[in-house]
Amino acid sequence: MERTSFAEMRCSLARALELVGDWWSPLIIRDLFLGVSRFDDLVEDLGISRNLLTRRLNALKEAGIVARKLYRDRPKRHAYELTEAGRDLVPVLIALTEWGDRWVGPREGRPIVFVHTKCRKRFTPAITCSACGDAITADTVKAIAGPGGAARTGTKVIAKRLAASA
Amino acid sequence: MERTSFAEMRCSLARALELVGDWWSPLIIRDLFLGVSRFDDLVEDLGISRNLLTRRLNALKEAGIVARKLYRDRPKRHAYELTEAGRDLVPVLIALTEWGDRWVGPREGRPIVFVHTKCRKRFTPAITCSACGDAITADTVKAIAGPGGAARTGTKVIAKRLAASA
Repeated sequence: MERTSFAEMRCSLARALELVGDWWSPLIIRDLFLGVSRFDDLVEDLGISRNLLTRRLNALKEAGIVARKLYRDRPKRHAYELTEAGRDLVPVLIALTEWGDRWVGPREGRPIVFVHTKCRKRFTPAITCSACGDAITADTVKAIAGPGGAARTGTKVIAKRLAASA
Repeated sequence: MERTSFAEMRCSLARALELVGDWWSPLIIRDLFLGVSRFDDLVEDLGISRNLLTRRLNALKEAGIVARKLYRDRPKRHAYELTEAGRDLVPVLIALTEWGDRWVGPREGRPIVFVHTKCRKRFTPAITCSACGDAITADTVKAIAGPGGAARTGTKVIAKRLAASA
């Protein structure tokens, strides 16, 4: 089935989802961040088919999120690593993990605990306002139209409403 | 095609993805947050088929992220709204939107600008450490094994490595 392309939508969330909005990609990025970087290890860790993993890795490479590097010359063996854009996604995935811990985590407790190497403390991620530093919540955020908005497929109703309320 | 279930994986990211890890769900949540809440408006805004939207809304209802409410009695008309769990996802989606703005946003600029109603300033979301308040990055986070970890499909290699490095 052809999937609707989000790449041209005038929404940065949609465009992000175009790159990583399938089920597997975030777990692949998780694994690369945690140091599982070889094809066979990814297959074993995730229980994903080799075919599907190849397709997802190729898509992530094309998206500039993952890069392939040679780690052994004879026989040639490759591993994968996150690019700068991929590493920049890690905090977002940690924030989504925290949401999962809160709402659907295993009853045994968190599978992973994160330590901030700067302050050496265990932490949970907070999503905060760049202006005042407070945590943001759905109740304290208002969206307004930005310069890149357009009422097209993907934002047809939203863009009009945001423009009207500006 | 049967999709691998992430619901039983010992990973809170995988479990979150089980609920919202498809392409459409985050955009539906975005729309509900921004006030586009009627079925027909969602269809028009997103350009999604009625069939697919029905399926996604039902899945989101089952996941406890979306609720249906009656907004007109005769004829009966329903709208959708985010539950508490759904509203709790909004900051994560704003953080992913910011990643999209940075890496794949339209060249015309951000489609949406966010204002923090508490401090009344425009902001970009930062993902910060609950212990020291600094922004976290992939370079400053170390993962350690938590009580809910287990070496099963989805975390077969990771869980062993984390446990070994503890």
